[in-house]
Amino acid sequence: MGNCCDCVTGFFCRPKNTNVRVSLPAVCFVWQIAMIILFGVFIRYDEESDAHWVEFKREHNITSDIENDFYFRYPSFQDVHVMIFVGFGFLMTFLKRYSFGGVGFNFLIAAFGLQWALLMQGWFHSLDPATGKIYIGVESLINADFCCAGSLIAYGALLGKVSPVQLMVVTLFGVTLFAVEEYIILTLLHCRDAGGSMVIHAFGGYYGLAISWVLYRPNLHQSKRLNGSVYHSDVFAMIGTLFLWMFWPSFNSAITDHGDGQHRAAINTYLALASSVLTTVAISSMSQKTGKLDMVHIQNATLAGGVAMGTAAEFMITPYGSLIVGFCTGIISTFGYLYISLIYDCYDSHSQPFLEKYLKLQDTCGVHNLHALPGMLGGFIGAIVAAAATESVYSAEGLINVFDFEGSFANRGVGTQGGFQAAGTCVAIAFGLVGGAIVGLILRIPIWGDPADDNCYDDEVYWEVPEDEESIPPVLEYNNHMIHKHQDISESNFSVEQS
Amino acid sequence: MGNCCDCVTGFFCRPKNTNVRVSLPAVCFVWQIAMIILFGVFIRYDEESDAHWVEFKREHNITSDIENDFYFRYPSFQDVHVMIFVGFGFLMTFLKRYSFGGVGFNFLIAAFGLQWALLMQGWFHSLDPATGKIYIGVESLINADFCCAGSLIAYGALLGKVSPVQLMVVTLFGVTLFAVEEYIILTLLHCRDAGGSMVIHAFGGYYGLAISWVLYRPNLHQSKRLNGSVYHSDVFAMIGTLFLWMFWPSFNSAITDHGDGQHRAAINTYLALASSVLTTVAISSMSQKTGKLDMVHIQNATLAGGVAMGTAAEFMITPYGSLIVGFCTGIISTFGYLYISLIYDCYDSHSQPFLEKYLKLQDTCGVHNLHALPGMLGGFIGAIVAAAATESVYSAEGLINVFDFEGSFANRGVGTQGGFQAAGTCVAIAFGLVGGAIVGLILRIPIWGDPADDNCYDDEVYWEVPEDEESIPPVLEYNNHMIHKHQDISESNFSVEQS
Amino acid sequence: MGNCCDCVTGFFCRPKNTNVRVSLPAVCFVWQIAMIILFGVFIRYDEESDAHWVEFKREHNITSDIENDFYFRYPSFQDVHVMIFVGFGFLMTFLKRYSFGGVGFNFLIAAFGLQWALLMQGWFHSLDPATGKIYIGVESLINADFCCAGSLIAYGALLGKVSPVQLMVVTLFGVTLFAVEEYIILTLLHCRDAGGSMVIHAFGGYYGLAISWVLYRPNLHQSKRLNGSVYHSDVFAMIGTLFLWMFWPSFNSAITDHGDGQHRAAINTYLALASSVLTTVAISSMSQKTGKLDMVHIQNATLAGGVAMGTAAEFMITPYGSLIVGFCTGIISTFGYLYISLIYDCYDSHSQPFLEKYLKLQDTCGVHNLHALPGMLGGFIGAIVAAAATESVYSAEGLINVFDFEGSFANRGVGTQGGFQAAGTCVAIAFGLVGGAIVGLILRIPIWGDPADDNCYDDEVYWEVPEDEESIPPVLEYNNHMIHKHQDISESNFSVEQS
Repeated sequence: MGNCCDCVTGFFCRPKNTNVRVSLPAVCFVWQIAMIILFGVFIRYDEESDAHWVEFKREHNITSDIENDFYFRYPSFQDVHVMIFVGFGFLMTFLKRYSFGGVGFNFLIAAFGLQWALLMQGWFHSLDPATGKIYIGVESLINADFCCAGSLIAYGALLGKVSPVQLMVVTLFGVTLFAVEEYIILTLLHCRDAGGSMVIHAFGGYYGLAISWVLYRPNLHQSKRLNGSVYHSDVFAMIGTLFLWMFWPSFNSAITDHGDGQHRAAINTYLALASSVLTTVAISSMSQKTGKLDMVHIQNATLAGGVAMGTAAEFMITPYGSLIVGFCTGIISTFGYLYISLIYDCYDSHSQPFLEKYLKLQDTCGVHNLHALPGMLGGFIGAIVAAAATESVYSAEGLINVFDFEGSFANRGVGTQGGFQAAGTCVAIAFGLVGGAIVGLILRIPIWGDPADDNCYDDEVYWEVPEDEESIPPVLEYNNHMIHKHQDISESNFSVEQS
Repeated sequence: MGNCCDCVTGFFCRPKNTNVRVSLPAVCFVWQIAMIILFGVFIRYDEESDAHWVEFKREHNITSDIENDFYFRYPSFQDVHVMIFVGFGFLMTFLKRYSFGGVGFNFLIAAFGLQWALLMQGWFHSLDPATGKIYIGVESLINADFCCAGSLIAYGALLGKVSPVQLMVVTLFGVTLFAVEEYIILTLLHCRDAGGSMVIHAFGGYYGLAISWVLYRPNLHQSKRLNGSVYHSDVFAMIGTLFLWMFWPSFNSAITDHGDGQHRAAINTYLALASSVLTTVAISSMSQKTGKLDMVHIQNATLAGGVAMGTAAEFMITPYGSLIVGFCTGIISTFGYLYISLIYDCYDSHSQPFLEKYLKLQDTCGVHNLHALPGMLGGFIGAIVAAAATESVYSAEGLINVFDFEGSFANRGVGTQGGFQAAGTCVAIAFGLVGGAIVGLILRIPIWGDPADDNCYDDEVYWEVPEDEESIPPVLEYNNHMIHKHQDISESNFSVEQS
Repeated sequence: MGNCCDCVTGFFCRPKNTNVRVSLPAVCFVWQIAMIILFGVFIRYDEESDAHWVEFKREHNITSDIENDFYFRYPSFQDVHVMIFVGFGFLMTFLKRYSFGGVGFNFLIAAFGLQWALLMQGWFHSLDPATGKIYIGVESLINADFCCAGSLIAYGALLGKVSPVQLMVVTLFGVTLFAVEEYIILTLLHCRDAGGSMVIHAFGGYYGLAISWVLYRPNLHQSKRLNGSVYHSDVFAMIGTLFLWMFWPSFNSAITDHGDGQHRAAINTYLALASSVLTTVAISSMSQKTGKLDMVHIQNATLAGGVAMGTAAEFMITPYGSLIVGFCTGIISTFGYLYISLIYDCYDSHSQPFLEKYLKLQDTCGVHNLHALPGMLGGFIGAIVAAAATESVYSAEGLINVFDFEGSFANRGVGTQGGFQAAGTCVAIAFGLVGGAIVGLILRIPIWGDPADDNCYDDEVYWEVPEDEESIPPVLEYNNHMIHKHQDISESNFSVEQS
């Protein structure tokens, strides 16, 4: 520790350069200008958001404005939007001194990511070959929010250890990879994945874990004092948890089929989530000597049911099937937080989590347990439920609608569909792991302004942090006052002696 | 205090067993497994959420998916869902050291309650005798959330004084009683109660008060130091207040008739709530020597207008009628907080509230003033407005629609309807009081792990609470440092003397 | 400072009377009773919320209840409602000791304002001359919320410096002025301003600034210690920011045309907001020596894109046009916070902001930068986009629909429309400045109970504030304990000496 200085705030600072004054504005400006140019070239309103709608309506014999897709999907869109910005954002405020970074950087990268997602998803999914344009409507906005979610999940594994510039890079590549794997899974393999167990959660989780693995910091214990929550930061995080939990039915139903599709997806997700709350509480309580609950579990594992229903929610999984999914994933996710990857236990240093001890992988928010693992499970659950579909349960027409067995896929059987669903899950994981490893290597280039090992989880590095709680100064003052009085006594003693 | 130990945290701990390591997981697992089995036997998708919808649509000449009930009710459902989990949850974070318990146990019991509610309400209201199945859709989800609300209201009276296992019992019986009284009131008495002034608020309020009365703790003053708010916990509670306040129009309109019914219920509730804010502020300010406002009133009594409009919101109460209801209930509720039941005034011990002094009843959140009393008033307001209904105001058809005067009730007059509405209110209160007393006796069995009298309102009992605010350690360190310096001075004095 | 007393809390208190025990309840009661009477005389349900809807439907060949305007606008209404109460409310909790006042007074004045707005807007826009009644529906509720927003914006400039009674006066006149300028701009000048860049933001911003200018406090630096945030208050403010940011697409689309109008307005606003996040971050980072971000910018300037799209959102501004608007306003707004008006920098007293130094104007929340300036820009952007409209882009029918070129305005060209839009912006600003100056003079009458200069930004003045953080007492106790031990040592020294 030769080249360290003892700062007034009490930690050692390495001569690592965390100044992002040039790089962060440069990235923001260049990328935003690029977005404007590319939007100018490619993006247009679709027929339902264009002023020509009045003509379109007449031509297509649409009798009412209420048939505009806006009214089918806008309420779900707004719920998804809340999940992306308040849900993910506040879930990451749990650290005692990284709440600004948690909610603020989430805000930044989601705002960038959704623009890039509109382009990437547009090129892959809805580029009109005749005009060379991408036509966007409310469903595009939902998909763009979904696409960001992958990168925000990855942020969960990196929370506190990377610079905002690195996060912008994570998002640029994350959205790009997302659009490609989504194209492969949804279009080429013709999988169904309305709530994104595969394309969002499994991909995003493994993407973040792979990056974190490449960026492993052996001396991260130097920031241990900041890797934990305080009372109020845990309450802030519950805002994130609850908005995610409450609006997950909208997430999984946002882009499913009109009518019964959206209806069923919402019901299934609602039930799975309720079920995983109970098993999370049960396992959390069992794991402690006196049955006390751990906020980390309540904040995270309660959501596992929603993640795991991402694929199957629109299927006829049945209400009790949904409860079973939530039941199992609540247990698995909580066990994950207990043994596989969790935040440091500040008071018990030998309890290193499995992932860190054996795989040299540090996962700040435990995205492995909340997204990667339940997402993967959700993919396979979807495969099984798809393979088990029958005409009697779905009706002949219903089966075609739900699995979209049309065009070149008209003759695909449900068994085959199940196989493709499983294959899609593997594709998502592979994209996450390989893509994450490559992006991790890019992030190791020492130009991004990442924090030193003893400086992680600290908002001071990238934010102007206000002076400490207003309650402190009077206390100090009071003590000084008291102490001075003592000095007087001591000094008076002294003088007595001397006399 | 012979068998007490002086803990480091500064309070005395009784040898009361608060260990829930066996009971809490056992209850969660057993009940969740029971839910899965019962759902497997009874619960199915209804025709609007089933994949057969496409056939159903054709058979019933439904021209568009937008006619699916999902699009009529889902936005309201999501608002109600927010009220249940964020609204009720955060409203109960106001205590300085019970925020985890407030929001966390609310989460747990609501997640359990809504499953049990789907079954109980299904058996009573929508069991198909032909198939023996309950068919659920979005309206069932709203009703399940409503049904939970009764138990969450009861939790408000018990906050900080019961264990999570006891809360699960409160919810199990609460939901059961709710379904029975709801069946009697809505089906047998054929009352209208869209927003649940009677079936939710009056029932839930008196249910909680009766339980709290049976569980009276004469030595609760030993936990006085924790029965109060701190600055930030009061701000957290405002999150709950505002989401309840904003979404109450959705609550009262969520299950009213399509079209004008939902429209009118939202308008009436919006107006009543606005009005009660002003009178709450007025009374709160008048009650203090210098006109200062009390956060307890703002957090709670502002909502009384919504509670009191639960029955009448769908009627033609007129906009100014709604304002009058809000005006009066805002005053009554604030007076309730001032004189009938309120949280302890930590600094003025002789100001015991009426309920505690004369009825030996401790009501942590003052549910008497926010739910029980305004709910009862709402029931009677509904009775009066129903009795005053005329064909000229409602139109002949409108009268039949609003009061559902069909089938065996085709000949019921509005006067009779008013009488039944009043009777329904009494039934709700009776169910609450008798049911609560019985459940209270069950909860007195000493196996549930409830906290000791000097240990109430403390998250430490059931939660892993993180170390205190990060600001404290440096202060202590600083003091120790200073004190050590003094010791040096003192010791040097000593040595001078000895020399 | 002869007549000052040194209080225990450490500040000097002037003999200024901040007692509102008579005035606040009086204003609340009188105004609420007036509302009830006026509602009784004027306000009725419109045909879509009246029980006669079933007849209306038949007469107008409406085939489905889903055609009720409720289903077109209610989800947007609820989002707007959240923006008004949680968005504006929590955005103003950023001050370390004015969170109660920020969120609580916002709640009070919005609840009053919306009632008065229903009347004022009703008289100007929808009074039925035949019956002398105002008929309200969901669109009226949205407009009432919008109307309040003007006064809430003005509150932002006054935060911490005025009494609740003054705020009620600000709201009474604010809503009145709003309804008049809105009538002039929307009806007489026939401008389009769906999201209210002109009528809400430019008006509200300049209204607040003018009041603040008249109420200039030369000795406000005496409250400097409280004019700043603490860590957790900044996180609370982010709740406000994010709910405003997320729901702004609903704000700008809430009252636009059914179908493509709402759809397009939501898309445009979504894009503009995303773009302004990136440029806000860029400028914020550039402005600090080490590239650190400032929470004030993130909390506020990120919203500028939504403000600036208030007028043009429903036009065919194109997706990239929206991005450009967000790009520019994010930069301008952040520069505003840096140089024009910002909160005190507590640690650098010579960095007085431009507005305060040269115009003697104190703007607590910087509404100049977030509302006044971007609102004005939004008005002119709307003018330009309107003037540039063509039939090929809008279609002939679309052009008529979007600009409402019907009746006496059937022959107005787009160029003329652009001119009127620009004129409308000037009218809004003029109303704000002149109206605000007059209201400011009224507020200078010394009867409203406003705080002293050294007492601003302090909840203690108007709220019962709970004792400080629970963490403090044990610390003090601990210190006393330690100190007593020292006294013993000292005293024992003393006795040794004396012996």
